[in-house]
Amino acid sequence: MSDLIEMAHGAGGRTMAGLIETVFRPAFDNRWIDAAEDHAAFQVPNGRLAFTTDTYVVSPLFFPGGDIGSLAVHGTINDLATAGARPLYLSAGFVLEEGFPIEDLERIVRSMAGAAKQAGVAIVTGDTKVVERGKGDGLFVNTTGLGLVPDGVALSVAKVRPGDVVVLSGPLGDHGVAILSKRSGLSFETEIQSDSAALHDLVGRMIDAAPGLRALRDPTRGGLAAVLNEIAQTAGVGMRIREADIPVSDAVKGACELLGLDPLNVANEGKMVAFCDPADAEPLLAAMRADPLGREAEAIGVVTDDADHFVELETGFGGRRVVDWLAGEQLPRIC
Amino acid sequence: MSDLIEMAHGAGGRTMAGLIETVFRPAFDNRWIDAAEDHAAFQVPNGRLAFTTDTYVVSPLFFPGGDIGSLAVHGTINDLATAGARPLYLSAGFVLEEGFPIEDLERIVRSMAGAAKQAGVAIVTGDTKVVERGKGDGLFVNTTGLGLVPDGVALSVAKVRPGDVVVLSGPLGDHGVAILSKRSGLSFETEIQSDSAALHDLVGRMIDAAPGLRALRDPTRGGLAAVLNEIAQTAGVGMRIREADIPVSDAVKGACELLGLDPLNVANEGKMVAFCDPADAEPLLAAMRADPLGREAEAIGVVTDDADHFVELETGFGGRRVVDWLAGEQLPRIC
Repeated sequence: MSDLIEMAHGAGGRTMAGLIETVFRPAFDNRWIDAAEDHAAFQVPNGRLAFTTDTYVVSPLFFPGGDIGSLAVHGTINDLATAGARPLYLSAGFVLEEGFPIEDLERIVRSMAGAAKQAGVAIVTGDTKVVERGKGDGLFVNTTGLGLVPDGVALSVAKVRPGDVVVLSGPLGDHGVAILSKRSGLSFETEIQSDSAALHDLVGRMIDAAPGLRALRDPTRGGLAAVLNEIAQTAGVGMRIREADIPVSDAVKGACELLGLDPLNVANEGKMVAFCDPADAEPLLAAMRADPLGREAEAIGVVTDDADHFVELETGFGGRRVVDWLAGEQLPRIC
Repeated sequence: MSDLIEMAHGAGGRTMAGLIETVFRPAFDNRWIDAAEDHAAFQVPNGRLAFTTDTYVVSPLFFPGGDIGSLAVHGTINDLATAGARPLYLSAGFVLEEGFPIEDLERIVRSMAGAAKQAGVAIVTGDTKVVERGKGDGLFVNTTGLGLVPDGVALSVAKVRPGDVVVLSGPLGDHGVAILSKRSGLSFETEIQSDSAALHDLVGRMIDAAPGLRALRDPTRGGLAAVLNEIAQTAGVGMRIREADIPVSDAVKGACELLGLDPLNVANEGKMVAFCDPADAEPLLAAMRADPLGREAEAIGVVTDDADHFVELETGFGGRRVVDWLAGEQLPRIC
């Protein structure tokens, strides 16, 4: 086999079959992939399913704390987790650019397989397309996930109401800053690593601890600011958050100052924003802090009754400003 | 809104929200999209599910008989149909290139929505990424599908055995030739249209008529030759097919001669290859021919006991040749 992806690797013939046999099948290693069908079939427990899709186009493909493979597994699991779902199965759809090193593909596929194994999900069906040199950018990958929503769980941003407490699972900005520092060749005293992680176990604890949990959302592209504004619109409410309570590491704070970024707009890949009944805020925080991925969880604000659906920030100096979501592009190709 | 896709359309902020509101939500028009969550949740009937993914990178995006949108719906439904499944839900993940005309996106999205509606499936969750000019090729779209396998149905290529009859649902080559003629600017006396179509209703009839149906596969990339070789390998059998019985339209035959293509290697997007117990071949064919999408179905050969797993063709002149699957690339970016 050549060391580089050729158009033939996407052509449905013998070369593509070889790639599946040598790269995908050994890494994903399960009976569905072994069956060599164009689909995976399985029995699911009776109940509600959650279904979500994301295509990953992050650049660079490898970054401190992860790569596009682990990110594609974590990100889609986290979207399932926003439904309170336990992830069950993932699909993987690759778009490879002609000339892409097969060694890099192998490394990414192994990373996906490792992340999936660690999260207890199987990558059961896939697809590979190849586009000509200059018509892609190395590798894009879509993962689509299927999860099981436990009985009685029905999280929805439409349930968010005035008085609800806004809880954030940990410090903001690590993923975006890690990507940007790698991209720009900047290095900081402390290397900032992506926070990319699968949050379904954390979410399981949160659901168990807080029956008054209304909704979850992971603040990825657009950061916390975009998530809060979007939910304010959807739920027809306002929000008031407190700058002093929003965790941001000193390293990220420093990098953001240097790079001219606001941590509220920077993408995260291992954080969850929760909205819950105020009566449940304490047990929710306690449960989150008992999980390694929620150790630095904080209550950061409240949902308000606001016909304008504004998200307001109480600044450290006692002032207030509106937190807008960006119209434009702060950090392209972040996930 | 600008007429062209900008990086901001993929940035998770206000501009992306605007694109979802104005393009995706009105077209896909269902309660899951309206809910504006990062997932769709639904109850599925108790039973086995089929799950499949495909990314579509076809070039050109618009071609006689369809476009990338309808193709992305039909293709994924057909992969579910190879499991005997009724399609239930689809996801849609877009990778747009900066500068792509929003008008073309709208046309493609409407085409997806129309194809989904006609097939009775809902596109319930999605994702949009934007890559810089020169890092993509207009539009790629991944669709991932979820379907319900009827009780008692367990199609699998591993079940294919010597003596089974090979049935093809209709003439070969229309999709590939339609794409290639559009790409090369060639026109033929009769315009050749893609056969792109959703085959789940046809498959439902086939399952009802033939309890001895073993396996189905749609001959897309790599054509019939690739499918037969792949199944011969997986099932550990050989195949013998009869050239005289393989339907190919005169127009496609002529175009293939002109273009130097073998219809056996050309992609189809509305055809199914079936393997069944010889006792069921007649009722299977009768059921297929009663469906508009199987009107020209033919029994084209038999499965043989062959340790070399060869696919042999009995030619029109009474000779025999081995039908290899292509190692290389005959028609890139066909789906």
